[in-house]
Amino acid sequence: MKAMTLKAPGGLDKFVVADLPAAPPPKAGEITVRLHASSLNYHDYVVAIGQLKTADNRIPMSDGAGEVVVVGEGVTEFAVGDHVMSMFFPDWFMDEATPATVGKMPGDTIDGYAREYVTVSAHFFTKTPPGYSHAEAATLPCAALTAWRGLVTAGQVKQGDYVLVQGTGGVSVFALQFAKAAGATVIATSSSDEKLERMKALGADHLINYKQETKWGKKAKEITGGRGVDHVLEVGGPGTLTQSMFACRMGGHIALIGVLTGISGEVPTYLLFSSQLRVTGIMVGSRKDQLDMNRAIATNGIKPVIDSSFPLEGIADAFRHQESQKHFGKICLEF
Amino acid sequence: MKAMTLKAPGGLDKFVVADLPAAPPPKAGEITVRLHASSLNYHDYVVAIGQLKTADNRIPMSDGAGEVVVVGEGVTEFAVGDHVMSMFFPDWFMDEATPATVGKMPGDTIDGYAREYVTVSAHFFTKTPPGYSHAEAATLPCAALTAWRGLVTAGQVKQGDYVLVQGTGGVSVFALQFAKAAGATVIATSSSDEKLERMKALGADHLINYKQETKWGKKAKEITGGRGVDHVLEVGGPGTLTQSMFACRMGGHIALIGVLTGISGEVPTYLLFSSQLRVTGIMVGSRKDQLDMNRAIATNGIKPVIDSSFPLEGIADAFRHQESQKHFGKICLEF
Amino acid sequence: MKAMTLKAPGGLDKFVVADLPAAPPPKAGEITVRLHASSLNYHDYVVAIGQLKTADNRIPMSDGAGEVVVVGEGVTEFAVGDHVMSMFFPDWFMDEATPATVGKMPGDTIDGYAREYVTVSAHFFTKTPPGYSHAEAATLPCAALTAWRGLVTAGQVKQGDYVLVQGTGGVSVFALQFAKAAGATVIATSSSDEKLERMKALGADHLINYKQETKWGKKAKEITGGRGVDHVLEVGGPGTLTQSMFACRMGGHIALIGVLTGISGEVPTYLLFSSQLRVTGIMVGSRKDQLDMNRAIATNGIKPVIDSSFPLEGIADAFRHQESQKHFGKICLEF
Amino acid sequence: MKAMTLKAPGGLDKFVVADLPAAPPPKAGEITVRLHASSLNYHDYVVAIGQLKTADNRIPMSDGAGEVVVVGEGVTEFAVGDHVMSMFFPDWFMDEATPATVGKMPGDTIDGYAREYVTVSAHFFTKTPPGYSHAEAATLPCAALTAWRGLVTAGQVKQGDYVLVQGTGGVSVFALQFAKAAGATVIATSSSDEKLERMKALGADHLINYKQETKWGKKAKEITGGRGVDHVLEVGGPGTLTQSMFACRMGGHIALIGVLTGISGEVPTYLLFSSQLRVTGIMVGSRKDQLDMNRAIATNGIKPVIDSSFPLEGIADAFRHQESQKHFGKICLEF
Repeated sequence: MKAMTLKAPGGLDKFVVADLPAAPPPKAGEITVRLHASSLNYHDYVVAIGQLKTADNRIPMSDGAGEVVVVGEGVTEFAVGDHVMSMFFPDWFMDEATPATVGKMPGDTIDGYAREYVTVSAHFFTKTPPGYSHAEAATLPCAALTAWRGLVTAGQVKQGDYVLVQGTGGVSVFALQFAKAAGATVIATSSSDEKLERMKALGADHLINYKQETKWGKKAKEITGGRGVDHVLEVGGPGTLTQSMFACRMGGHIALIGVLTGISGEVPTYLLFSSQLRVTGIMVGSRKDQLDMNRAIATNGIKPVIDSSFPLEGIADAFRHQESQKHFGKICLEF
Repeated sequence: MKAMTLKAPGGLDKFVVADLPAAPPPKAGEITVRLHASSLNYHDYVVAIGQLKTADNRIPMSDGAGEVVVVGEGVTEFAVGDHVMSMFFPDWFMDEATPATVGKMPGDTIDGYAREYVTVSAHFFTKTPPGYSHAEAATLPCAALTAWRGLVTAGQVKQGDYVLVQGTGGVSVFALQFAKAAGATVIATSSSDEKLERMKALGADHLINYKQETKWGKKAKEITGGRGVDHVLEVGGPGTLTQSMFACRMGGHIALIGVLTGISGEVPTYLLFSSQLRVTGIMVGSRKDQLDMNRAIATNGIKPVIDSSFPLEGIADAFRHQESQKHFGKICLEF
Repeated sequence: MKAMTLKAPGGLDKFVVADLPAAPPPKAGEITVRLHASSLNYHDYVVAIGQLKTADNRIPMSDGAGEVVVVGEGVTEFAVGDHVMSMFFPDWFMDEATPATVGKMPGDTIDGYAREYVTVSAHFFTKTPPGYSHAEAATLPCAALTAWRGLVTAGQVKQGDYVLVQGTGGVSVFALQFAKAAGATVIATSSSDEKLERMKALGADHLINYKQETKWGKKAKEITGGRGVDHVLEVGGPGTLTQSMFACRMGGHIALIGVLTGISGEVPTYLLFSSQLRVTGIMVGSRKDQLDMNRAIATNGIKPVIDSSFPLEGIADAFRHQESQKHFGKICLEF
Repeated sequence: MKAMTLKAPGGLDKFVVADLPAAPPPKAGEITVRLHASSLNYHDYVVAIGQLKTADNRIPMSDGAGEVVVVGEGVTEFAVGDHVMSMFFPDWFMDEATPATVGKMPGDTIDGYAREYVTVSAHFFTKTPPGYSHAEAATLPCAALTAWRGLVTAGQVKQGDYVLVQGTGGVSVFALQFAKAAGATVIATSSSDEKLERMKALGADHLINYKQETKWGKKAKEITGGRGVDHVLEVGGPGTLTQSMFACRMGGHIALIGVLTGISGEVPTYLLFSSQLRVTGIMVGSRKDQLDMNRAIATNGIKPVIDSSFPLEGIADAFRHQESQKHFGKICLEF
């Protein structure tokens, strides 16, 4: 079985093509999956460059999609031939996570999906939405589920709400799509007019170039007629949170997802209080979230935006492309 | 000022054209509205035929829409010329109703809107959604708000959910429209194939003629692939509730709205328990619900289906048309 | 290993003392538990008398408590010597149940805990609250968890609420205790003044003998000063539901738990609508519920009321005692 | 009528004893209240010292309690002789605030209750809990309602939860009392061992002197057995928020209430994300919150801790006492 592994302490030149033993036959409750695709997330990137330390020879990549090839005793949820996609946190079933249920992270604390076969407990996977290719399915477990949990599970977005999405990364594009499918109005921000036009083509109702409009929070509030937005998908972190707060309506919701601008910074906490804001820390989602999301995708027909695909051995090039920030939508591996 | 009044003890031949004194000038906190439209609901009908007892010479009709013509001191929410629509329960501000907040019902416990002018506290009205005619606005306060509260406030409908609507009355048509705008899949039932086709044209995904398919609950569950629907807008009451329960998924939600088949009847309560159902009794909605709904309408562009319009003096004919059950969508009065 | 089994088609004279093979050593993820106690629920009774059909030679009893004696590979939640109690639905992790997660019911669809040893997946058990005997722990998985889910998970009972509990069965006594620990006021009903006095001793604030006070719903509403109760733990079903509805405040909550008076009956559905009631069907609870409940018990110091204990071979006598309705609190098996 | 007014731009030496005209007779919907007590909050203090600018000759004090002496036409909620307490935000009825509903703040944007009589709309007041003196009732509208909304409305505290309260100010003492009445375990922090002992006497289960234990967040987590607390009542703001985050369990709740340590500061936003925290900005509460709280107080028998009382003319001395930080519990004015 072919796989990519990462030599400690990481770095884009530390990927190795490995010839590993075949995946073992499934025990009771397990399945064997022939993987065909993965997709790149920021979390995979910080593993790849060694900013997040992992074991030596770790198989990277948290997203995996493929086909069930062997089904272990007692597994009723899947049959041979089913197309399946991975869970970011395979042990998180319940609505609330605990440290125990988020300890196991494929591609980080355990081996991930940059390989041809895997044998794991059936609950590491869910079925793929109908009509999805393996590459499309591989974009969902991390980026789409994060957007879903932020907007739907935590945010309970409803028709008529205003949703602000920051930038054009994977989570933000999915958030735009789920928000539109929910009947919301979307304000998109980016530093690139070209990327904003692509967001418009995907349904964004209002566009803000935050390089030109540095006080984009105030601008967003004006767009809503002075009331403020109902939800912000906060992927930036401390560098953008203040403007997000200014964008919100009284009682608005900020789904705090990202650390793109740092892990700590100055926050005007009085705004949380005087605008009665609600901030929820979002870290991907549960199995229930993923089943709900996939059910929604089967209905609303959303398709992920795939920027480009690389072969398994091209994983380092794929990460370099991600690093260049030139992409729009998801970068995939297909094999 | 012209108005229609109803002589006790009611009956469709008991409407009288009255020439009433002009509406008084607004006191502090009040507004005077020139009414231009109303619409008929089942509640108005039971008042009209005297099944629900009201005071002698009551001005009927709970729905009203028109234009603000005078604004009292201290009113900041409205300006002269604003188009406005009434609240079914003008005193219900908070999310939960109390007997005190639902005691005042225009067209029932106090005079309603079958008249040219009214002077009331500003909180009896909200603004009309942009682009709505007075007749369109007059369809919203009772029927649309009931559908909204059942599906959105109580049901928290989300994309991917299955929603079952019963029949083709006003509440059910609005429920179909809100469900589609929320990204849900809709199953519509009716005894008329012709009406079902009209529901399909409005977006219904699945149709069931319940005369042909008497076990329509089981049929609906099959349509969902065996899982069951997430929400039923139950307008029938005891005669339909059992099938609604069979239609539901485990943990499903039934918004109990109506009494069309009676006020009491045999209910298989064990199904509530074994399917872990959630039943919520819905009686129109609060001011917050109405503001949220109107904000949604401004975004999703939903337009009410108007069956026909009658002049104010044609109120008895309008109710006879409603009685005939030949209509599809809302019957309005315009004046 | 000694166990009790039940010959099909059931009946209190169909229990057999069986000498079964020893429990197998635990595989990965499993534990072996030396059981020491069980307790009787209505669900066990309908199994025992054969009203609910089960496989021939079924080992009955859904509640089990004991001590971990062997721990399989990879189990981190338990250590040898830990005192543990069973889950009614071992596969229900998530907040919402599905048919798949409630299909496995020890003592019903699979063998239960009327035996000395069992080897099962670790997730069939949770730890016992500190200071609890095995018999005390065995009272919790069905009766206490049902009361917890009805009042806390579904009802979100809060200090100042009024809670009405019906009768003095296991669920109702636990509901009284949880309601008092939550700062609520409790109204207890029973046909026996003697049992009502025992409820008073456990903290009930108001007592209604429903034989003397047949319109006990109205009486309960009077006790609240006319506002109505916030929650009813409805264990009776159709025979009591109407009075429960009259007891409720506008917007009140009825946790529908039981079928003691039948599985179907006349229900005044208009009351659900006109009082805007919320009815939730409750069927025991999830693993998260059980962990939350046990954490609460560790804090509030609640102890179950145990009526009497029988040896394992006395199981038929235990059910006869339950049938006689002379007990107050839980009947246990200890072995 | 005697009143205290504050000369702009504020300062503790700017209070003036004023002899104002009698309160006007109530119009329709209004009541006249003979005020007998008020209490001091941090918000009143920043008004008093002029940090928060108010109109010249403003009558300060947001809390007021007294007796209804005249009832205007149409008022049904109150009768002459009723004991009443004020609403911090008289126009906030609905569960969610809007800028319009929190614009009117007695003692800040409009005149407050440092006077003998007031005539206002009936909805400026609610009834006082039974058995409460005017001084006791005057402690509730700001401090107690803030604690209630943070813990109960937003936090949905339940039995078994751990609640951390910071310091021994009015909000924190009420939070301790409500948390204990809800069946929670309370961890109290203070820089004074003496004050900690007073918290213990009121029911605090665990005490941390944050001067000795500067990493009190970690200490609090240890107290919970490593799981973390469920709720923090964050009155400090940026200077304490980091430790609060460390104290929390995964998925824990921080009710952000205060600005005692500043309005802005360094926040480790990654913790919000990695611990999936929920932060809610709390600014007192709605009428519904106050009615719920008072109903709870009538049940749980909580009594406020009153540090000391001053006459109306002693208002500056009262604020100086507050400034000295030597008090424990609420400082009142009685007149």
